Amino acid sequence: MPRYKALVAYDGTAYSGFQRQLDRPTIQAELEQALFKISRLPVTVIGAGRTDSGVHALGQVVAFDLNWSHGTAALQRALNANLPDDISILELAQAAPAFHPRFDARRRAYLYNIYNHAVSHPRYRRQSWHVIRPLDLERMNQAAAFLVGEHDFATFGQPPQGENTVRQVFSAQWQRQEPFLTFTIEANAFLYRMVRSLVGTMKLVGEGSWTVEAFVEALEARDRTRAGQTAPPQALFLQSVTY
Amino acid sequence: MPRYKALVAYDGTAYSGFQRQLDRPTIQAELEQALFKISRLPVTVIGAGRTDSGVHALGQVVAFDLNWSHGTAALQRALNANLPDDISILELAQAAPAFHPRFDARRRAYLYNIYNHAVSHPRYRRQSWHVIRPLDLERMNQAAAFLVGEHDFATFGQPPQGENTVRQVFSAQWQRQEPFLTFTIEANAFLYRMVRSLVGTMKLVGEGSWTVEAFVEALEARDRTRAGQTAPPQALFLQSVTY
Repeated sequence: MPRYKALVAYDGTAYSGFQRQLDRPTIQAELEQALFKISRLPVTVIGAGRTDSGVHALGQVVAFDLNWSHGTAALQRALNANLPDDISILELAQAAPAFHPRFDARRRAYLYNIYNHAVSHPRYRRQSWHVIRPLDLERMNQAAAFLVGEHDFATFGQPPQGENTVRQVFSAQWQRQEPFLTFTIEANAFLYRMVRSLVGTMKLVGEGSWTVEAFVEALEARDRTRAGQTAPPQALFLQSVTY
Repeated sequence: MPRYKALVAYDGTAYSGFQRQLDRPTIQAELEQALFKISRLPVTVIGAGRTDSGVHALGQVVAFDLNWSHGTAALQRALNANLPDDISILELAQAAPAFHPRFDARRRAYLYNIYNHAVSHPRYRRQSWHVIRPLDLERMNQAAAFLVGEHDFATFGQPPQGENTVRQVFSAQWQRQEPFLTFTIEANAFLYRMVRSLVGTMKLVGEGSWTVEAFVEALEARDRTRAGQTAPPQALFLQSVTY
């Protein structure tokens, strides 16, 4: 049966994350339901990354197997017509039969938006973390620089079952992208909650509660209890997956 | 009693417009309720513009009278603490006792976002109009140029009771502001539905259904039935009011 690869964007606000769960709305369940509606067959969808509850995606990658004789463009239209408007198939193509979106992924990139202002703004509340205390971008970038390379990130998240906590970070930096302070990080893979735990802890560095040295010591401690706070989910986006 | 002037931003998605209505949530009602909560007195809020149901504001201006002895900054915090998170008081200051946000306003600016792409995007659905057919920005700007100056805009909207349909447009143009095609228009005042009616009709010009000449003829006809479609509300923002 042909395998398809899809680039998917979603607003995660209304969902309990990507992965299918009993009795809770998830992205995977919506995709599988749309596939069922157009094929009348149960189809399993595999995703590159299991985004948490409330987390968004600009470039999630999924795969599924389907017999479909009306062309890829028509399949994309049919799927989008059967998906809610907070999930979209941006691109769709046939893939090699052995393609696996999670195991074959070489790099994932996430971005996280902080709205650093005295007053919250209604327009940004669904896609940013509102932080009132002024943040020092330079200090946060000093901390972020220590993340690049291969490290044991046990302080900042849990691994999927059977995996270790070592990950390779290719880039990690804060930038002013008005109206946000945006953190972008690219790694071979991530631990559960890793980006939000890193952001929440670097926020403490940015506001002056933690020194950069304390951040580095926490990283080197490889101890989950040494992390600072976990930043909220609505500001996090899975940006892209590279194969 | 001192008069206050507030700069207000809101996400209009959940509201039946600015103006108070019986049994429907509106921005004015929420503001008045927050003022009631902190003062235990009925306070009337006056707005510069009566945005429609579903329309947003980045810079609505409102005024109200209140006896408050704890300072303006504390009043702003108390109001924001008692407002839902889709409405924010961005700035607050005392105003002259005679200040009237609607009658004193000299210019209003609106912006409208079109997301012109083959596939809708979940991230932009709450703040843009998704248009699939490719739009020609140059043609739309040729049409927009005819709006500048003093014209009778009867084709594109209804006046408030007792007013005529002549308005003075200071600027009107389309720009590519990725990922959107954005229309910005500034005028002394607007008719009801005017921006959405203009945008919906210029969209017909942009996709090639109407010529620029047909647009100009419709404007000159001063006949409401000659307008094209009315663009949807979720992409419209009251950007600023100038005094």
